[in-house]
Formats: sequence, C-alpha cells, structure tokens
Amino acid sequence: MVKINQNFARLPQSYLFSDIAHRVDAYAAAHPHQKVIRMGIGDVTLPLPCAVVDALKSASSEMGSKETFHGYGPEQGYPFLREAIVEYYRREMGVVLKPEEILVSDGSKSDVGNIVDLFSPDNTVLIPDPVYPVYRDTNIMSGRKIVYISADSHNAFLPLPDPSVKVDLIYLCSPNNPTGAVYTKDQLAQWVAYAHEQEAILLFDAAYERFISDPALPRSIFQIPGARECAIEFCSLSKTAGFTGMRCGYTVIPMELSFPGPLGEPISLNKMWVRRQTTKFNGVSYVTQRAAQSVFTPEGLEACDKNIHYYRENSQMICSLLAKKKIEFYGGAHSPYIWLRCPGEMSSWDFFDFLLENAAVVGTPGSGFGKNGEGFFRLTAFGSRENTAEAMERLSPLL
Amino acid sequence: MVKINQNFARLPQSYLFSDIAHRVDAYAAAHPHQKVIRMGIGDVTLPLPCAVVDALKSASSEMGSKETFHGYGPEQGYPFLREAIVEYYRREMGVVLKPEEILVSDGSKSDVGNIVDLFSPDNTVLIPDPVYPVYRDTNIMSGRKIVYISADSHNAFLPLPDPSVKVDLIYLCSPNNPTGAVYTKDQLAQWVAYAHEQEAILLFDAAYERFISDPALPRSIFQIPGARECAIEFCSLSKTAGFTGMRCGYTVIPMELSFPGPLGEPISLNKMWVRRQTTKFNGVSYVTQRAAQSVFTPEGLEACDKNIHYYRENSQMICSLLAKKKIEFYGGAHSPYIWLRCPGEMSSWDFFDFLLENAAVVGTPGSGFGKNGEGFFRLTAFGSRENTAEAMERLSPLL
Repeated sequence: MVKINQNFARLPQSYLFSDIAHRVDAYAAAHPHQKVIRMGIGDVTLPLPCAVVDALKSASSEMGSKETFHGYGPEQGYPFLREAIVEYYRREMGVVLKPEEILVSDGSKSDVGNIVDLFSPDNTVLIPDPVYPVYRDTNIMSGRKIVYISADSHNAFLPLPDPSVKVDLIYLCSPNNPTGAVYTKDQLAQWVAYAHEQEAILLFDAAYERFISDPALPRSIFQIPGARECAIEFCSLSKTAGFTGMRCGYTVIPMELSFPGPLGEPISLNKMWVRRQTTKFNGVSYVTQRAAQSVFTPEGLEACDKNIHYYRENSQMICSLLAKKKIEFYGGAHSPYIWLRCPGEMSSWDFFDFLLENAAVVGTPGSGFGKNGEGFFRLTAFGSRENTAEAMERLSPLL
Repeated sequence: MVKINQNFARLPQSYLFSDIAHRVDAYAAAHPHQKVIRMGIGDVTLPLPCAVVDALKSASSEMGSKETFHGYGPEQGYPFLREAIVEYYRREMGVVLKPEEILVSDGSKSDVGNIVDLFSPDNTVLIPDPVYPVYRDTNIMSGRKIVYISADSHNAFLPLPDPSVKVDLIYLCSPNNPTGAVYTKDQLAQWVAYAHEQEAILLFDAAYERFISDPALPRSIFQIPGARECAIEFCSLSKTAGFTGMRCGYTVIPMELSFPGPLGEPISLNKMWVRRQTTKFNGVSYVTQRAAQSVFTPEGLEACDKNIHYYRENSQMICSLLAKKKIEFYGGAHSPYIWLRCPGEMSSWDFFDFLLENAAVVGTPGSGFGKNGEGFFRLTAFGSRENTAEAMERLSPLL
C-alpha cells in the first residue's frame, strides 16, 4: 500500500491569508459602502514597464513564425539572460560571477523550495523567527530538524550567530520579509564566518535587494569575502521589476561549493542543482526570459527604479506617520515592508481587527510569521499612492 | 557539516544527448558541406498558432496597464484555464472532472518530477523499461526502491501487470515515450485493477494524448472505470499545442484519492499537492495561462490539430518506408515517435553511427532509455516535411 509523506501532517495549517480574507469578507458584507484599503499582501500593483511589455510582444511574435520559433530552451536559462545577470552583478554590486553560476528559474519561491532536494534529511536547519514561511515549511516537508533563532526588538530583528549552536543549513533574508530589516556588511560577515566554522551552507534570500538605496548596505551575500565558499543566493524579478505575475527568478551557486559524496569525492552543488533542474524542470518560457532580459537594460532598470521609487515614497509616508505617533517600527527605509509594534500592547490579531473595524485598512498580523511576530504587524508599501495616503489619514487619529 | 543528498551519486550519468551532440559535431566538422537532418530530440518545430500568439500579445498588453495588470495568481492556476480544461475533458473524452481537480503548472516534467514529494521514500516503484528517464531519476534522487517491468517485442512494448509483484507507485506513459506504443482500454483496465489490488497509485503520463486518432483508444486514464480511486494524470500543452518553449501543463488529482496519515485519518492527495505547490511554486505566468486558454477554444484546437496532422503525415512517411523495408517497428500511428529494431542486429549506438556516417541523419539510440532499449532506435516526426522526406530518401537505399 502506498505510504504518503507523513511529514505533511506536521505542517502548521497555514490559514493566515485565508483567515484574513474571511474577516475582510465579513467586514465588507457588513459595510457595503466602505472602501477597504488592502496593505496586507506583498504583491506589486504598478504595471510592467513599456520596455518589458514591448520585449514580451516581440518575443510572442517570434513564437508565431517558423524561422524564429523557440521550443525547449536550456533548463538553466538562455545565455542572453544569464549574461545580462552577470553584468548586472558586476556593474551594480561589483560582484564577479560566471554565467554558469546563474541558474534561471520560474521564481525564487520555487528555488528556495526545491533547493532542499540537494541535502540529506539528516541536517539541522537554522531559521530566524519571524520568517518567510517557505523556509520552515519546506524543511518540515522533508523531515529536517529546525532550530529557530530569535529576531526581536532586542536585536532590531537582525539576529547574529550564536557559535554554540551547531547547524548545517542557515536561512537568511535581507532586506527581510516580513520585518524589512537589512543586515550591514559587518553583520553578514559574522554570518559568513559562522557558516565557515560550521561547514554549513548559507541560503541567502535577496529577493528585495533592489529596495536598498544606501550603497553601504550589501545587496548580495557575494559582496562579503568568503561567501563564495559557503553561500547560495536566491533572487527574483518579482519585486525588482513587478514580475509577480510573470514568474522569473535566479539562483546563484558558486563553483567553489562542493561537499563530500559517498566515497569522499567532492560533489559540486552547482552540478547537483543542474542535475535536479534538468530532471524536474524544463526551463522558463522563452517570452518571459526575453522580458527579463529587457529589465537589465539601462531603460529597463530606469523604468523599474521609477516604480521602486514610487513604492519607496509610499513607505516614507507610512514611516513618517509611525514616527510622528512614536510607534516602534522596523523596515521601510530599504524595504517595501514596515513592521510595527501593535500600539497599546494589542496582540497581532487584535490590532488587525481594530484597524479593520475602525479604518477599513487591512494589514498582516505578525504572529502569522512565527512566535516572535506576536504583538507586531506588517504593512506593505505596494499599494497606490492615493490608497496609501488615504489609509494614513484614516490611521492617524487612531494611533 | 552539511550533508548532501547522497542519492544523487547513484544517478546514472545522463550523457545520452551530450554524447549524441559530440558525435554529430565531430561528423559536421569532418563534412562541412553535408546537411545533417535531426530526428532525435522530441521537440516541436512548427510555430504557435495565430490564435495563441494573439492571446499572448493581448495578455502582454494587459500587463502594461495598471487597470488590467495581474500580479500573483492562484498557484493552482486561474479558474478560466482550469474550467477550459474541465470542458476539454468532458467534450473530447467524456470524462467529468471538477475544476479543483485540475492543477495547472509550468509543464508536466515539473509535476512528474515533483509529485514524489507527496510519498514516503519507503515505497516500491514500478517503472517500465525502456522509459522516459524522469520517472527513474526522480525516484533514485529520493531513495526509493525501483522495480522494472520489461517492455519488449514480446509484449509489443506494452507490458501488463504481474500480480505477484508488490508495488506502491506505478508509472505508465501512453502513448509511450520512447516507443510510441498505446495501451487499449482493456489493457489499462488491467492496470487499474492491479493498482486497486496493490492499493497503489498509478501515475499516468498522458503528454501525447492528442496524437491518438482512433476513438477506441483511451486518451485519459479517467476513461477507465475505477481510475478515479487510484490514478493521477499528467498532461501537457507541449506536444498538444507546441508549448515546449512556453511551459504549461496540468495534473489531474481526483478528490477520491486519500491515504492514511499518522493517526490513520484520511489525507487527500489533492490537498497535499496544493500544499506542496502553494509552498514551493508560485503559479504559471498570467500571459502563458491566457495563451493556454486560447488553445482550448474551437479555433485554437483546430489550429493545433492542423499541426498534429502535419507531424502525423511525417510519421506515416517514416512508417511506410520501414514497412516497405520489412523493419520491425512500433508507434508512429498514434504518436510522434517511431521505435524501430536496428537492422542487421546492430546495437543502438552502431546504428546511430551507421545512419550518421551514411545518411547524415540523427536519431536517438534506444539503449539510452533503458536496458530493453538496446538494439532499438527512436525517430521523431517533429521535423519539417522537406527534411523528413529527404531523410527517408537517404535511408531507403541503406535499409
């Protein structure tokens, strides 16, 4: 008789966003004339830049003609895109990568989730709390032991390694989802040193790198010396270029990363990932890769930055109200997320209900991201300018 | 210290297509003026139908406007596409499905590969030999015991179950890759009965269903009574609609499928898959889903069928030469693949070299698909009419 993967039964039932939806639906039904402003979900709202739409349409035309049709592409991504990303790292971050170290995919969520295939279930995983739930859930699914490290107001939601804790895989996200906190180079250097001591792999989620405007802050783990020998980086066009509905990301696996195989021989993680992807994946749509390529042109990046600037101005509006009201908060400066302490010692869900009932504004209860999220609340800057301004006007008298 | 998944070291080094490429490159370098005709790889060559390109462009325009922009979509696919597929099954195959039983993805290779996440490593897997290598490799990666069942000329490459063999997961592909053989309803009914006896799951790969032209032959496992209680079906737009470079497929998981969890409670495989996909996947590109929707319109299907008819005529050309030369072959009638016994008791690779040297025609050595493929050879009908005709002219005097 077939035996299912019993680890699935150990997964926390993830009702966060459906719970939110139910409460919002109930509110809307009771208040049909009230406009609800949604600042909960981390999805972009501005359309794709013209240059990207043009690239999409032009590639679509290519697919309609026998001479320019593209069938199966390389699972790791077309060279034109891998080279554009190499050039992006070099120009923007001073990081030198090889094209074969860039592995293109349909989004960093897929890669963050699937990377666990490369590792034995017999590894201990370190995950910050609160956290993007994918790190935790994918490791529960594959039956690994998880150790949590507390991100809280004592460390400004930027926990640093504890050398007494023994781990094999380390997840970090900076700028962080959900807290918006950003590690400095010095802090990341401590994590890299720790990963080396532990002979661990650092899985670095850089999906929000383009929201960093301070050149002193690291946007890539590979800006830290020694990272090539211990880190994998996940990146995405979702927030950089509004690709949440397009699906394109990339993972960087340096050639230096290798670990002993059954006979003690070194096995390259990059080669293992290529084997994984050529077996369980068939590459990203040609038209999407052409659209992604257009993002990395000067016009493409300029248009994307204009959108990021728009969201950043929304952030500033939210942050300045919170500062004025003397509410403790994190993020916002280099992140589309603002993570605030619920006023009056309210719980996350109490504050959710309070905002919904009194301002018809929807956010995300911090407790949905882990134990340490209790008493905190996440707002996103991805809404329209008008809605963000209106939400702040509604909130102001309540805080 | 991090421990890698040692099962990767047990994977056969898959040099098939790179070996082919090396030999073809060497031949081309030595014969620069000879046109090489490639009938090896199972990739389509006809462009996307106009209706599909129009849908792609129209959706691309939507992505460029704030009012019609689409961000994150449902991981399981947009309702418009799931409903179009339900209607396709109903109208074309008389199979009644619910929209929530259709799980849209970026291709059936991904789903066939990722489905193993739902099952314990402690299952025995039955796989025909020769076989599409993904079934074997994904189970080696996750450390399952594999039992092979021989597909060979004694069973016309359509093996039937042996009730004495105890298994938990069963892979079947019909029309088959690489042999082109197609199961009848009676034969599939034997597999469904066997899956019930074993309390096993039948993983049915229907990627080539649209090449079946005989209405008596089953195109879906769900045309077989009892299949809803034991089968999962994988399907793809790659061969149906030339989507190899577009990436869209779907998996059908009936609501009836459930197996005991840790406390003996029934756990739905459909719900497990949704949990897997919402955790490790972020849905298919909106523009791709609109393109896929257009495939299932009357104009879309008519255009796709015109392309399939074109490939089918190529098949007939290949089959009629083989029949004339009295060479044993399988497939071709309801499949883009023709699987032939190498003449003169040549090995698969000897025949490969023979065709390359004497006709500059490239095929795929059958031994690349498993032990029982030795002595056989795969040709595909996905080339152009002109090239297929020219290849047959070159082959005719050699066979």
